[in-house]
Amino acid sequence: MRILLTNDDGIYAPGIYALYEALKDDYDLDVVAPEAEMSAVGHAITLTMPLRVQRIKRNGSFFGHAVTGTPADCVKIAVQELLERPPDIILSGINRGANVGVNILYSGTVSAATEAAFLGFKSAAISLNTRKDPDFRFAARFAKQIIGFMIENNLSKGTALNINIPAVPPEEIAGVCITRQGTARFKEFFERRNDPRGNTYYWLSGEAPVEDANSDTDAVCLKENKITITPVHYDLTCDEELKRLKTCIPPSLKME
Amino acid sequence: MRILLTNDDGIYAPGIYALYEALKDDYDLDVVAPEAEMSAVGHAITLTMPLRVQRIKRNGSFFGHAVTGTPADCVKIAVQELLERPPDIILSGINRGANVGVNILYSGTVSAATEAAFLGFKSAAISLNTRKDPDFRFAARFAKQIIGFMIENNLSKGTALNINIPAVPPEEIAGVCITRQGTARFKEFFERRNDPRGNTYYWLSGEAPVEDANSDTDAVCLKENKITITPVHYDLTCDEELKRLKTCIPPSLKME
Repeated sequence: MRILLTNDDGIYAPGIYALYEALKDDYDLDVVAPEAEMSAVGHAITLTMPLRVQRIKRNGSFFGHAVTGTPADCVKIAVQELLERPPDIILSGINRGANVGVNILYSGTVSAATEAAFLGFKSAAISLNTRKDPDFRFAARFAKQIIGFMIENNLSKGTALNINIPAVPPEEIAGVCITRQGTARFKEFFERRNDPRGNTYYWLSGEAPVEDANSDTDAVCLKENKITITPVHYDLTCDEELKRLKTCIPPSLKME
Repeated sequence: MRILLTNDDGIYAPGIYALYEALKDDYDLDVVAPEAEMSAVGHAITLTMPLRVQRIKRNGSFFGHAVTGTPADCVKIAVQELLERPPDIILSGINRGANVGVNILYSGTVSAATEAAFLGFKSAAISLNTRKDPDFRFAARFAKQIIGFMIENNLSKGTALNINIPAVPPEEIAGVCITRQGTARFKEFFERRNDPRGNTYYWLSGEAPVEDANSDTDAVCLKENKITITPVHYDLTCDEELKRLKTCIPPSLKME
């Protein structure tokens, strides 16, 4: 089985390397990942600039292709140009930091997985819930179970799994949950500062999420030290509102 | 009523100016838009760099704030820092080129509207279906009807409207449709070229969408010269797959 690995922390990040090490004996691996860190790029793709691709070594031997683009660019160029054979599965990660709730809209890691689903591949994004001294070993081992889960349950075309792993010792993990994405808002603000030349600049700060009322969400389950698995797709249609608005057009909208 | 205007073509683009001109006599307008063109940035936000904000004039008088960030950054910094009073509605556009189907995942225009919905505002993204010599006049007039539609029908919190306008004379427009987002794949490929120093680079090309089997989609209706209105949200959970996978965990996944 062939697996394509990508991420948004960049090809030199320890998370993707941990995944590579955990999977390399059992699978044919390809690595195509951003040359530089691409966090919070969301589903951006590169249209106004060309992409460059470089062959990268790690520990003295060929590791993969570094691309001067976003995670979504990496998935596209991997399957459409760089790989000799298409992958059976595309994995994105392991990300340093959780990707839950509305955060996943900003996430390059998750966008690589939804791009993969959109191109017709089984895919998953894997994130570890810490940004400080991450130990990726358990998450990387768990990725092997995820691959089995995706194959056994024949994950639907057009769906990606968004997976978050608690950053606690394995014996403290409180189980595995299939959850929905949380939709709670963040408490955000901008810090207003002055640069050394006296000019104002702003920096986004304070991202602690507001508590979700719904307890069946990725954010809440991850907080309870459960591994969360959320099936995500790329159809943003809001079905309830679609149904309701269909009854509203004739009186209120007309051609001039 | 106060309306915030933003876009992804940049604050100097003609589309946002057409919207401004069409609405300025009836509404209190604020403009906060990217300093430079930000197409295809998706829902990217700026975390690793500070944002700069500049007051911009058009035709000799104050027009709005230009931000050195993405459309989603503009919405955040507008409502959290720059505006004295919160807007009643946030409009993004008018974009040069359609935003239908899976394209909306790459769209800065649509992402600004979903960011606005996520922050609790009524919002809409408006795009005109041409990239060549766009005439924004009808679309800008239609935006006034959209505002009425959003207010009358009390658009749900957490939902944004993604609106596409055919680029034909108003008398050729074949009606208004409430549609779903198409999910058809694109026919894409990378052009491989050599730069003047003989180095290879790649450029994404060929974006003609593959035909959607489902006829009730934004892409199909727009092609029939209908105005499309698609309610979109920011919950990427795939409900069917969620329900199915919930029955699958116990046998196949376990803690090591």
